[in-house]
Amino acid sequence: MKKYVYAFHEGSTDLKPLLGGKGSNLAEMTRIGLPVPGGYTVTTEACIEYYEKGNIIWDELRHQIEEKQLELEKMMEKTLGDIKNPLLVSVRSGAAVSMPGMMDTILNLGLNDETAKGMAEITKNPRFVFDSYRRLIQMFSDVVLEIPKYKFDNLLETKKREKEVKSDTDLTEEDLRELVEAFKKVVKKETGKEFPQNPKDQLMMAVEAVFRSWNNPRARVYRDLNDISHTMGTAVNIQVMVFGNTGEDSGTGVAFTRNPSTGENKLYGEFLMNAQGEDVVAGIRTPRDIEELKEILPEAYEQFCEVAKSLEIHYRDMQDIEFTIDSGTLYMLQTRTGKRTANAAIQIVVDMVKEELITKEEAILRLNPNDLDQLLHPTFNEKALNDASFITNGLPASSGAASGKIYFSPEDAVKAKADGESVILVRNETSPEDIEGMVASVGILTAKGGMTSHAAVVARGMGKCCVSGAGELNINESEKVMSIDDQHFGEGDFISLDGNTGHVYAGQIETQDASLGGEFLTLMKWADSVRKLKVRTNADTPKDSAKAVEFGAEGIGLCRTEHMFFEDNRISVMRRMILSRSIEDRKKALDKLMPMQKEDFIGIFKAMGSRPVTIRLLDPPLHEFLPSEKADIEKLALEMEVPYSRLKETVFELKEVNPMLGHRGCRLAVTYPEIYEMQVRAIMEAAAELKQKENQEVIPEIMIPLVGEVKEFDYVKELAENVIEEVFEDYGITVPYLIGTMIEIPRATIIADEIAKGAEFFSFGTNDLTQMTYGFSRDDAGRFIKEYREKGILEKDPFQQIDRKGVGELMKMAIERGQQTRKDIKLGICGEHGGEPNSVEFCHIIGLDYVSCSPFRVPIARLAAAQAALRYS
Amino acid sequence: MKKYVYAFHEGSTDLKPLLGGKGSNLAEMTRIGLPVPGGYTVTTEACIEYYEKGNIIWDELRHQIEEKQLELEKMMEKTLGDIKNPLLVSVRSGAAVSMPGMMDTILNLGLNDETAKGMAEITKNPRFVFDSYRRLIQMFSDVVLEIPKYKFDNLLETKKREKEVKSDTDLTEEDLRELVEAFKKVVKKETGKEFPQNPKDQLMMAVEAVFRSWNNPRARVYRDLNDISHTMGTAVNIQVMVFGNTGEDSGTGVAFTRNPSTGENKLYGEFLMNAQGEDVVAGIRTPRDIEELKEILPEAYEQFCEVAKSLEIHYRDMQDIEFTIDSGTLYMLQTRTGKRTANAAIQIVVDMVKEELITKEEAILRLNPNDLDQLLHPTFNEKALNDASFITNGLPASSGAASGKIYFSPEDAVKAKADGESVILVRNETSPEDIEGMVASVGILTAKGGMTSHAAVVARGMGKCCVSGAGELNINESEKVMSIDDQHFGEGDFISLDGNTGHVYAGQIETQDASLGGEFLTLMKWADSVRKLKVRTNADTPKDSAKAVEFGAEGIGLCRTEHMFFEDNRISVMRRMILSRSIEDRKKALDKLMPMQKEDFIGIFKAMGSRPVTIRLLDPPLHEFLPSEKADIEKLALEMEVPYSRLKETVFELKEVNPMLGHRGCRLAVTYPEIYEMQVRAIMEAAAELKQKENQEVIPEIMIPLVGEVKEFDYVKELAENVIEEVFEDYGITVPYLIGTMIEIPRATIIADEIAKGAEFFSFGTNDLTQMTYGFSRDDAGRFIKEYREKGILEKDPFQQIDRKGVGELMKMAIERGQQTRKDIKLGICGEHGGEPNSVEFCHIIGLDYVSCSPFRVPIARLAAAQAALRYS
Repeated sequence: MKKYVYAFHEGSTDLKPLLGGKGSNLAEMTRIGLPVPGGYTVTTEACIEYYEKGNIIWDELRHQIEEKQLELEKMMEKTLGDIKNPLLVSVRSGAAVSMPGMMDTILNLGLNDETAKGMAEITKNPRFVFDSYRRLIQMFSDVVLEIPKYKFDNLLETKKREKEVKSDTDLTEEDLRELVEAFKKVVKKETGKEFPQNPKDQLMMAVEAVFRSWNNPRARVYRDLNDISHTMGTAVNIQVMVFGNTGEDSGTGVAFTRNPSTGENKLYGEFLMNAQGEDVVAGIRTPRDIEELKEILPEAYEQFCEVAKSLEIHYRDMQDIEFTIDSGTLYMLQTRTGKRTANAAIQIVVDMVKEELITKEEAILRLNPNDLDQLLHPTFNEKALNDASFITNGLPASSGAASGKIYFSPEDAVKAKADGESVILVRNETSPEDIEGMVASVGILTAKGGMTSHAAVVARGMGKCCVSGAGELNINESEKVMSIDDQHFGEGDFISLDGNTGHVYAGQIETQDASLGGEFLTLMKWADSVRKLKVRTNADTPKDSAKAVEFGAEGIGLCRTEHMFFEDNRISVMRRMILSRSIEDRKKALDKLMPMQKEDFIGIFKAMGSRPVTIRLLDPPLHEFLPSEKADIEKLALEMEVPYSRLKETVFELKEVNPMLGHRGCRLAVTYPEIYEMQVRAIMEAAAELKQKENQEVIPEIMIPLVGEVKEFDYVKELAENVIEEVFEDYGITVPYLIGTMIEIPRATIIADEIAKGAEFFSFGTNDLTQMTYGFSRDDAGRFIKEYREKGILEKDPFQQIDRKGVGELMKMAIERGQQTRKDIKLGICGEHGGEPNSVEFCHIIGLDYVSCSPFRVPIARLAAAQAALRYS
Repeated sequence: MKKYVYAFHEGSTDLKPLLGGKGSNLAEMTRIGLPVPGGYTVTTEACIEYYEKGNIIWDELRHQIEEKQLELEKMMEKTLGDIKNPLLVSVRSGAAVSMPGMMDTILNLGLNDETAKGMAEITKNPRFVFDSYRRLIQMFSDVVLEIPKYKFDNLLETKKREKEVKSDTDLTEEDLRELVEAFKKVVKKETGKEFPQNPKDQLMMAVEAVFRSWNNPRARVYRDLNDISHTMGTAVNIQVMVFGNTGEDSGTGVAFTRNPSTGENKLYGEFLMNAQGEDVVAGIRTPRDIEELKEILPEAYEQFCEVAKSLEIHYRDMQDIEFTIDSGTLYMLQTRTGKRTANAAIQIVVDMVKEELITKEEAILRLNPNDLDQLLHPTFNEKALNDASFITNGLPASSGAASGKIYFSPEDAVKAKADGESVILVRNETSPEDIEGMVASVGILTAKGGMTSHAAVVARGMGKCCVSGAGELNINESEKVMSIDDQHFGEGDFISLDGNTGHVYAGQIETQDASLGGEFLTLMKWADSVRKLKVRTNADTPKDSAKAVEFGAEGIGLCRTEHMFFEDNRISVMRRMILSRSIEDRKKALDKLMPMQKEDFIGIFKAMGSRPVTIRLLDPPLHEFLPSEKADIEKLALEMEVPYSRLKETVFELKEVNPMLGHRGCRLAVTYPEIYEMQVRAIMEAAAELKQKENQEVIPEIMIPLVGEVKEFDYVKELAENVIEEVFEDYGITVPYLIGTMIEIPRATIIADEIAKGAEFFSFGTNDLTQMTYGFSRDDAGRFIKEYREKGILEKDPFQQIDRKGVGELMKMAIERGQQTRKDIKLGICGEHGGEPNSVEFCHIIGLDYVSCSPFRVPIARLAAAQAALRYS
């Protein structure tokens, strides 16, 4: 019989996939002798089978749970539901991957009208018991019965107003008894049934609710957002209750073994006295700094510091710990690897290497390359900051700087983002329902909640700037007003957030690029020393090229020549070229464009120095350079002094049903060879001139796009070589160069052996290759890809992460066949996947020479390449 | 040293690729002892190298030609350019494949002012000599100097008018001497140089001109049209002249060993006395029936009959023979396999099998499957014909019947075709320049020219109806009038042609379907007995299904359900469905569509009997069912009683940038499962009802389109199975069925092993698979595919013939992987390639179970499948 339930003392960290993160860590802490209240874990496999069996707790599972529960009761010498001395337990979800804010928790399970009475007698603390009971009803209702929390919160607030008290702790036993009765009435009203009085029913219902919660919409959104599989399931942890709410020598807290924002090697945390579980992270009361505990309960504090240190050494990583002090005694309720900002992550691993706690390789592998993104984003310009109008201060919950317009609801934020606005989401506190709004925002500001509140944790995960707990702010979400003193800010007003200081400013503030610190450079050096893949950049301008070099780019993998034509003084020449009715007219227009392109290339070559530069010849269909709306065509006709009818006719002629599969790329060259001739001339003259005048050696790599048939390639190559010969004659010198192709048409992967006869390099254009391999138009697929992911048909968006099974298979075929003909063919990727870590790993595995990505993703690719080299060496 | 020149006695039929068709047959006839004037052939390889060397006759080639010429002169005891007794030769092109109408011919080469004088003395026939000389100048000018022929024709006509004679033969020696001088002046005026007097120069210039002619535009158009490679080159044949124009005991003619129109086993041909070479086929004089030769020159006639029979037996096929009688002596100038109508082709092979000249297998292999097409096209309805207004009679040059509007130039014909007109091209005679106009026409009518005229030969090749030599007609092409007696017909007037009788009628005549004759059925029976591939049809209506069964279809390979929605009473329900804002509304509309679809399926199932029927679920994007122009949207909004703005919004929302890669196929089912549910229900209820009420066993094959990911397939399959279960419960019976998928997304070919776990059949949708594999939008690629073919980048249009190297490779991968999981998976093709012989062959090679094509192509596919089975058994 399969084992579905493990006592804590039966498990260990190794069983994480089965026991979940929380369960395996509780087991591990138990194993190494830390003070952990007893309990057991129902496995993730049980959850998966629960779904497979059609959402049913089957007999065998029920039996195993009851068995472990019995063991626990024996150990504790207390029984669930015992009227005199009842055992209370907590029920918590815990998947194998961390899903902060997605956890379900029910405390104090086992209380009912009878056991509460008995417990009140035994503890002589009826206030505590009824506080616990009302919490049980509230949490059980939320998690199991799906009654909105606010219905209970409202009653609690009303009671506090009635009693004219500020804090929950000021409510009396009587108040709490009344609340329990009121809460039970809510349950009856909402569900038509009484709050379940049988503790065994409570237990099974709670377990099942946790299983169910795995597939609720917000959990699915979270997993989609974080690339977590929907098929892992969650474990359920049942644990004997200890109480932080028995009085003033009790409390509960959360701490990180190092600072999760800066990485500083110093215990960092918060606690509340006389409080239970979720009070700290829920942001209902503002918690106190962990150091203050030293004053209140010095012994417990010392013990906690020791446990924290030993956990960090045991796990060899910074830990995020939850604890409860029950009447002066410390209990560990959770430990897990702590979330951290990218800055902190780097600081921590570099420090730990110095402390000889981990190796350099471990340091490299421990970072999430995507997290580097936040380091590379701008901070406020200091001068601009001096003139900025300070409003208030909150907690520096997630680093970075952001300016944007205020929106008060996730829906408004999403809409504004869609309209192209830069959005700051302003909320009293955030909840999982707000996630999409947070995704749409550049920054998040909350009035309530600490460093470990939902807003803070999620924002850090997203690498978004967040200021939390700015308590002086009055935020009225329904009226869409935020005010402090006599200052009022409405929807659409600009504010600016500094996630590193917690400062909030009125208006927009100019930002400046990130300056990358010493630890970052250290880590990048380590990464560079192990990676096999070169990292290039996709850049079309000298400015982007320079930025990329600063970020460590080792060349340009994709310089798109078409972007150059969109500049103001060029687009009209380009349009004249397109409207030409004869080759002569077209050549005249191209003669005007040539020196412009040449200047572009000289600028880019200069910025890149001796690094290789791959230039893609014109790719988009010509109609992209012309307007399509009647009014715009009329305007352009006037400007260009051509008859409207002629311009309209040209626009109409060039229109395509499926432009993605239309007249573009090298297909243009077959029709209009003179366009590519001009471009090749501009490239080679630029290179020749730099060599002649500045003695700079440039090796241009000329890339022919959209090749699907070897004769296309040969045709353009011959055309290019003829021009190159002419340039060499004109300048009286030669310049080394390569001619290669994009591999982006499925057919090209099949005939790669033929293409490689003439092509000196392949660069995988995985954007288009994905479009054609899947038959998904990137412009149109958004609407159904979303649905596909929701229905579990697509696990990943193939435009974000290389589809290894389909697109990847074709890439492998192209490499294998290409190398058959040309053993040393240079191989790269220039699709947007080149900056996505999982895809970079794939590129390493299949043996590419380089990846190429946007400048800001270059460091990410460098780190991802190093990780891949370590994992697949 | 490579051998570039072969004397006739050195060659044979086996060397056809090298010597061309004409050259190798002259060699073969020489070899078997027939009376062939001596000569030699310059190889096709020489032509190819001529192009490779940059259009130059290089020294080695010149040397080899001179050597063979010397040998020839020795044998003939005459010398080229000898003033007293000059050798005259003909120079003719001859590629390895037949290109009727594309041949270049120069006769009488070697004549100049001096040799003409000498020859006149020796032959004592100066009239004949100067007739020959003027012909040389004219043909040499046409082929070598590129001076338009009409400039000489005009002078000839003027001279005839001047002399008041009707025929060329009535011109005197003096007239011809004057014409020679006039012709020479034309040459001087047009080229600035004298007509070349050195016979050796004439010879080399002629050889080079033939090489050049290989790549002239009309030759390229012809090859494109006939799927002939541009890289084969042409050979050049130099042959001693014999003369059909020495007087009334000389003549020249063309004959077929059997009737090329009906296949009747009887010599069939035409001749002219006192005429040279091209006079017969040029249609300048109307030639006489071959049987009349018996009266004039009985001995030569008998000899010719014997030679003809022996050639047919030697080549084991019907021959097309050219001969000349020089002063009573018969010479064979050419033999080749004769072109024939499809009807004749079948008659001939069936007869030859009966005559035990060839085997059944040879009979099958000898037919071009595409030619069957003409058999399947309509003839005139006999009743309608009785009422038709007869105008005139011409030669039944190419069978079939056609009604259409008169156009007098190829350009007008092309334009009218583009406007959707049914065109009859009316010309005095056609020339290669008219080919595009002929392509655009449904029928061709000429006033001049015989059964072997350009118009007749080309029209037969195209399988188009043609009436030639309708000599009573007065056709004024520039005035655009055709008249006979007092009847006048102008551009746009309707006429009708009967290609089987040569009758021409005024107005339109109703046509009827071809009734397929006994020989056709015999042949098809033979084909069916050897083929391995099943042949199904693509049909969406009971009518098409019945037609296809008549043509031998063994099932439906593709029933497109969307076409059913375009019918008038359904499109509005379909639109309501699309405009539905809720699932309920959508289901309501679908409930209305269901019985309609069910009726369709019942009709189709009945027509198909027990044959399998594959039904594809809805495939096109929904916007195809809605209008896109403002006025149409407004009209529809009124009709449907929905606000214009809402309809416009829906149209806008559904619009896609690349609809081919958009929200269609099974992607629709993920968004709107209820659509496929309705369709599956309609299919299964139709099948269940037929079983229940009529005891008819139907095996529907439900086909899911556009699968690229296995979960898509599984999702739709589960949905379908749920509906099927419901139907079985409703009807209380079960019906056997299959669920399979189209393989049309490149990714599907890669993951075919996964898909085959659930899919019981694969049907290759090679239209879309080609689009995505090549990255060619079929809607847009026309403009550049044409250019690609002209520039030799694409040899074939991949939408017409399966691209074996790219698309074919993916198909093979899909089959291999699919069979890994499901050994006996049923495999078919339903793209339009399924009716194209070369593609059918490929389908046989890769082991498909069936091909599916449009009803009219079913016989073609049956024959192609038989040929493939014989070639690859």
